[in-house]
Amino acid sequence: MATVVLIVIVDVIALVAIVTNTTMNTFGQYFRFTSFGESHGMMVGGVLDGCPAGLTLDIEEINEELRRRRPGQSSITTARKENDSVEFVSGVLDGVTTGVPIAFLIKNENQRSQDYEQMKDLFRPSHADYTYQMKYGIRDYRGGGRSSARETAARVVAGSIAKQWLKQWNITIQAYTSQIGPIALENDYTKYPLEQTETNVVRCPQPEMAMQMQALIEQVKSEGDSIGGTITCVISHLPVGLGNPIFGKLQASLAQAMMSINAVKGFEYGCGFQHLDKKGSELNDAFYAENGNVRTKTNYSGGIQGGISNGEDVYFRVAVKPTATISLPQQTVDVHGNEVTLEAKGRHDPCIVPRAVPVVEAMAALAVADAMKQRLTEL
Amino acid sequence: MATVVLIVIVDVIALVAIVTNTTMNTFGQYFRFTSFGESHGMMVGGVLDGCPAGLTLDIEEINEELRRRRPGQSSITTARKENDSVEFVSGVLDGVTTGVPIAFLIKNENQRSQDYEQMKDLFRPSHADYTYQMKYGIRDYRGGGRSSARETAARVVAGSIAKQWLKQWNITIQAYTSQIGPIALENDYTKYPLEQTETNVVRCPQPEMAMQMQALIEQVKSEGDSIGGTITCVISHLPVGLGNPIFGKLQASLAQAMMSINAVKGFEYGCGFQHLDKKGSELNDAFYAENGNVRTKTNYSGGIQGGISNGEDVYFRVAVKPTATISLPQQTVDVHGNEVTLEAKGRHDPCIVPRAVPVVEAMAALAVADAMKQRLTEL
Amino acid sequence: MATVVLIVIVDVIALVAIVTNTTMNTFGQYFRFTSFGESHGMMVGGVLDGCPAGLTLDIEEINEELRRRRPGQSSITTARKENDSVEFVSGVLDGVTTGVPIAFLIKNENQRSQDYEQMKDLFRPSHADYTYQMKYGIRDYRGGGRSSARETAARVVAGSIAKQWLKQWNITIQAYTSQIGPIALENDYTKYPLEQTETNVVRCPQPEMAMQMQALIEQVKSEGDSIGGTITCVISHLPVGLGNPIFGKLQASLAQAMMSINAVKGFEYGCGFQHLDKKGSELNDAFYAENGNVRTKTNYSGGIQGGISNGEDVYFRVAVKPTATISLPQQTVDVHGNEVTLEAKGRHDPCIVPRAVPVVEAMAALAVADAMKQRLTEL
Amino acid sequence: MATVVLIVIVDVIALVAIVTNTTMNTFGQYFRFTSFGESHGMMVGGVLDGCPAGLTLDIEEINEELRRRRPGQSSITTARKENDSVEFVSGVLDGVTTGVPIAFLIKNENQRSQDYEQMKDLFRPSHADYTYQMKYGIRDYRGGGRSSARETAARVVAGSIAKQWLKQWNITIQAYTSQIGPIALENDYTKYPLEQTETNVVRCPQPEMAMQMQALIEQVKSEGDSIGGTITCVISHLPVGLGNPIFGKLQASLAQAMMSINAVKGFEYGCGFQHLDKKGSELNDAFYAENGNVRTKTNYSGGIQGGISNGEDVYFRVAVKPTATISLPQQTVDVHGNEVTLEAKGRHDPCIVPRAVPVVEAMAALAVADAMKQRLTEL
Repeated sequence: MATVVLIVIVDVIALVAIVTNTTMNTFGQYFRFTSFGESHGMMVGGVLDGCPAGLTLDIEEINEELRRRRPGQSSITTARKENDSVEFVSGVLDGVTTGVPIAFLIKNENQRSQDYEQMKDLFRPSHADYTYQMKYGIRDYRGGGRSSARETAARVVAGSIAKQWLKQWNITIQAYTSQIGPIALENDYTKYPLEQTETNVVRCPQPEMAMQMQALIEQVKSEGDSIGGTITCVISHLPVGLGNPIFGKLQASLAQAMMSINAVKGFEYGCGFQHLDKKGSELNDAFYAENGNVRTKTNYSGGIQGGISNGEDVYFRVAVKPTATISLPQQTVDVHGNEVTLEAKGRHDPCIVPRAVPVVEAMAALAVADAMKQRLTEL
Repeated sequence: MATVVLIVIVDVIALVAIVTNTTMNTFGQYFRFTSFGESHGMMVGGVLDGCPAGLTLDIEEINEELRRRRPGQSSITTARKENDSVEFVSGVLDGVTTGVPIAFLIKNENQRSQDYEQMKDLFRPSHADYTYQMKYGIRDYRGGGRSSARETAARVVAGSIAKQWLKQWNITIQAYTSQIGPIALENDYTKYPLEQTETNVVRCPQPEMAMQMQALIEQVKSEGDSIGGTITCVISHLPVGLGNPIFGKLQASLAQAMMSINAVKGFEYGCGFQHLDKKGSELNDAFYAENGNVRTKTNYSGGIQGGISNGEDVYFRVAVKPTATISLPQQTVDVHGNEVTLEAKGRHDPCIVPRAVPVVEAMAALAVADAMKQRLTEL
Repeated sequence: MATVVLIVIVDVIALVAIVTNTTMNTFGQYFRFTSFGESHGMMVGGVLDGCPAGLTLDIEEINEELRRRRPGQSSITTARKENDSVEFVSGVLDGVTTGVPIAFLIKNENQRSQDYEQMKDLFRPSHADYTYQMKYGIRDYRGGGRSSARETAARVVAGSIAKQWLKQWNITIQAYTSQIGPIALENDYTKYPLEQTETNVVRCPQPEMAMQMQALIEQVKSEGDSIGGTITCVISHLPVGLGNPIFGKLQASLAQAMMSINAVKGFEYGCGFQHLDKKGSELNDAFYAENGNVRTKTNYSGGIQGGISNGEDVYFRVAVKPTATISLPQQTVDVHGNEVTLEAKGRHDPCIVPRAVPVVEAMAALAVADAMKQRLTEL
Repeated sequence: MATVVLIVIVDVIALVAIVTNTTMNTFGQYFRFTSFGESHGMMVGGVLDGCPAGLTLDIEEINEELRRRRPGQSSITTARKENDSVEFVSGVLDGVTTGVPIAFLIKNENQRSQDYEQMKDLFRPSHADYTYQMKYGIRDYRGGGRSSARETAARVVAGSIAKQWLKQWNITIQAYTSQIGPIALENDYTKYPLEQTETNVVRCPQPEMAMQMQALIEQVKSEGDSIGGTITCVISHLPVGLGNPIFGKLQASLAQAMMSINAVKGFEYGCGFQHLDKKGSELNDAFYAENGNVRTKTNYSGGIQGGISNGEDVYFRVAVKPTATISLPQQTVDVHGNEVTLEAKGRHDPCIVPRAVPVVEAMAALAVADAMKQRLTEL
């Protein structure tokens, strides 16, 4: 048994060495974002290295993205309030980036660490409590510490800067809620007015479906339970040539970015898992010429061929599981190995999907900015 | 329009600089694999850096994995024959690894480059021809060059070495065909005798379904068309603690690995896209204690919590699109912008899924070996 | 002329793209330190990723290292006062590291930005003003911004954490001033009582020489000029096996670390540039056996053979140029291309060598911690 | 004692895990070179990733660089003959790079492995035998295996490609022998006709000094001994803006590159260790304006300020120790811990300096190409 073997190693080394661990908190190679901070520490924040000099930051736009992500924004999110705003402490002079690393801080507030006292010694089901404890031998139990989705606030700031940099090429990145529980939009993104996404609290561009989704979330909330869904994201005006042939395929980078978001369980782009009954003759995207550009008649490729963008829209979809924190009683084990029943009291979201929409956009923006920065070495 | 802008840049820089490009051909940080070679060059090969010293390689086992991947292995694969075998030229002394980089070569043979002469000047639909041409300004048109799945032979060798290294912890990695076109296995992996996967040419552990799948592939082949499917992969005996909290989540690394495989369009692990109608109370994995170990009663988490393995089986599923090469006529554009009809003559696979099974295993093995190597710094 | 060509490119691209730049602010692969902040911004700080969980930090020891580096510590340093102290905002719980990234801040104080108003539009000789302006098209002129040695305060914090982690193997890292101007210690490090290094403001372990060095620095200061010197560093109790054969040689990593320090112009280890008149028969280190260990009779190898530590002391020496900031008038050019005379008014160090001693130790500690962390994957 | 502790760990883990090791065989981030192969294996070779597409390779020029490095080229090198020539197996189509990884092989020939049989069980002084054995638990004793300078042949190929790419900016990289034993050129590089470097076997641009150096090497050879020296390298026409402010300073990258070469013990650039008696007022490089460009009157900065190239010549000097292999008897220890006397019989170079000149150029070219590739993301 592998586990047993490893425990033996730990015990022996414990005599001569402190338990040592590595984490990986940096995303990207050319446009590199490093994240830090915990849910109930003083702040979360980040360092963005490789962002070009000379970019005038729209701070209000960054804070607006934070507002899209923050808790307490509507009746279907957690009641916890965080009036997040970003403070830049490096790399920005008179509102303009200087080419040196951009460091920023987002203060934590309205923490109720006492909510977590009861959970100090037990492992919440489908949370990171058990794995962190085993990996590190220590864990910040207050609100999940580093594993909390609180950390994604830092990603939203970095992603917003990426979006602002990408505007010079008209690149846009827009995500929306495409499914909550069993309630799903039937058509692909081209059939919906995406500019209406932000008109409802669910962030669904189809108003009637949005109301049904909202009703479902409110019902689930009243039951002390939670529900998941899917988010669709569309990247438009991407130039031809982003991404790399083999391991650095653009879809591989986007998949890594998406799967790094808490609660995301699946990723598909282009035809994805959706058209497995169709044949090559039906799914191949025929080329045609339009005003001197090469275009495809259909876009089952999802805007990427051979790992490289082909100039069509890139679109993908992610699956988000129900929030692990629920009020209903659950069976679990404490750190001493005793089986116990957990009845959580903390404030939580019945459905994280609407708040995850800006996080999906942020991570997509970071992946695209990294690919774009690399592409600039090639021109 | 972004594209237009970029073309302007290219034209101007072309006066003063050669078109410059970057590719990324390395996977992993601790157990690092670099791949090289093209479909119709002399060979494909790779360099594996970070593989431990003192590992006795089973060369026959590596060649056996190559046989699982090679064309011409059965009636449902391409008729092209490649008797691949690996040759080690660095890092192995008397069959034992020495700690320095392992370099290996796999000679190309039985190439029929003339099959591709007719395609020299046109872009095959849903292939990488157009994007390579635009990114690099040059492309090896013979069999797709670097974009050919021929390159995955090198991955299979590196993955086989990874599997051999992981054996000391009893870690096993097994993939199988779970769907061909609309014919899908109904149950999850725990319901099938996975040891029977290799008993049929489809690599499906359920014999009756395998026969149906084979019949479908043969029919599609006779039509000059192609079909896709899904592959499920199970990683067992993984110790607790592999993977990282944020961007380096184990599922993010596996997703990147899978999405880097040609024709893969989607990735899901644990509950994935499958149980979106279920609530948190149904999908949370209750903990219990078993012989001093902490286990979960269900495994919707897919063996990973907070990005870190929890000791349960890790399982995931990938979607594979139909082979882009078909014999039926297709509309496309040539390099001069003229619309033309393509009627391909090259030998090709009507369904790549069975041959992709060992590639999925190889990439999973490389991702796990990288995580394991990192984990060793923490013990 | 390359320069002209590049200016042309800039002009053209400026029409379609913001000037874009990359910086690299991360050191290490396994024990990774990212630095941020500018001289006259709100703070400098850093993120240390990969530091093991379970390490109890001695905060007072870290602040003591900052005191060794801070300005205003004695009559031979700048009169500028900075009572630096570190604040941890991530990765530390109740004084113990948790395995997630350690983020820390050091507030800037006692800035006199007005001292730099006169220099806003000109390039200080042998500073980074001109190159930053050309690379980024924008620069923080106040105290050099990011190019200021102020940034090394963050390195000292990270290096102190590295030292504390390395203590479990008894690894010690000690640097001292070995030369100021023409006044140089004659013998190698084994001939001096290194524990007396901190007993004088010059940080020279030989008291009489220290007094001569101090007198020289004071004289140079009175002339409004500056002077350089050398620093020697000794790493003891390093286990056998750290470092890598080819590009990752331990000396290559140490050299990179040292050359990344402002004002360092040279690096040598072992016999270095010192014994070029000697032959192989004189410089080869004969092996002998001692209590079951393999030792060398001499140590011209400097504790490293084939890029890998051999268990003997690692020692090296760096050359530090005179501080570029002096009060004497200097010829230079302003941003408009006019030749002007600069008479600097800012407070500055007549000799940076004594304050650079803890920075040399910090960077050595980061390089060794990175090598040690990697070495742990091999055991 | 750290060493003892580590041996204990090895023994314990040996019970449950194969000894595991990492090596680092890749140089550069943007223009990345991975090297493989051993002295007495079948071949050495490399993979160059990130080299732009569209570069027409001059293969003869590459082979000419190999001839500058190869053994047996003159009376003052080893009598061992290697008619090295390079074979490209990936990334080159009809002599033009395609943007995918360039892989190449250099066959080994004229090996006399039997020369090393006697050394199989002992550690050669000041070689890598002992450290490799301790790090990996296994070593290829034939000619030093991976630690042999044979590996630098692969660097010369990659460096030659880098040089060819850099030609479009007129960047030139030229190294020469500036000292052999105590015989040293008195002046800096501006005083010698560097184009005469290749007119003598020592590679010294001053003919009279070259003859003295050659005589010294021949005398040392006749004594069965060896001698070292220094190499100076000049990089001209480098555009302004290469390199990064903090850890990625251009001098840090060059230092890492140089210290990664076997037998190199020191690195200095600009004023280096040479002018420690001078003051700031003497060493600061005054700026002046020339035809709209900003230039410096002197160049003690060595063409780099704040880590970034300023458009002046970059020049540096490295110290090379005497070849460790000599014919004179030496005291050492065998793998069983017995003290023995070694009398080497293998063919060897009495002085490696002349053959190291092209290796210094190659590594400088790789460092500059990496910086240039990054710089292209900024324009």
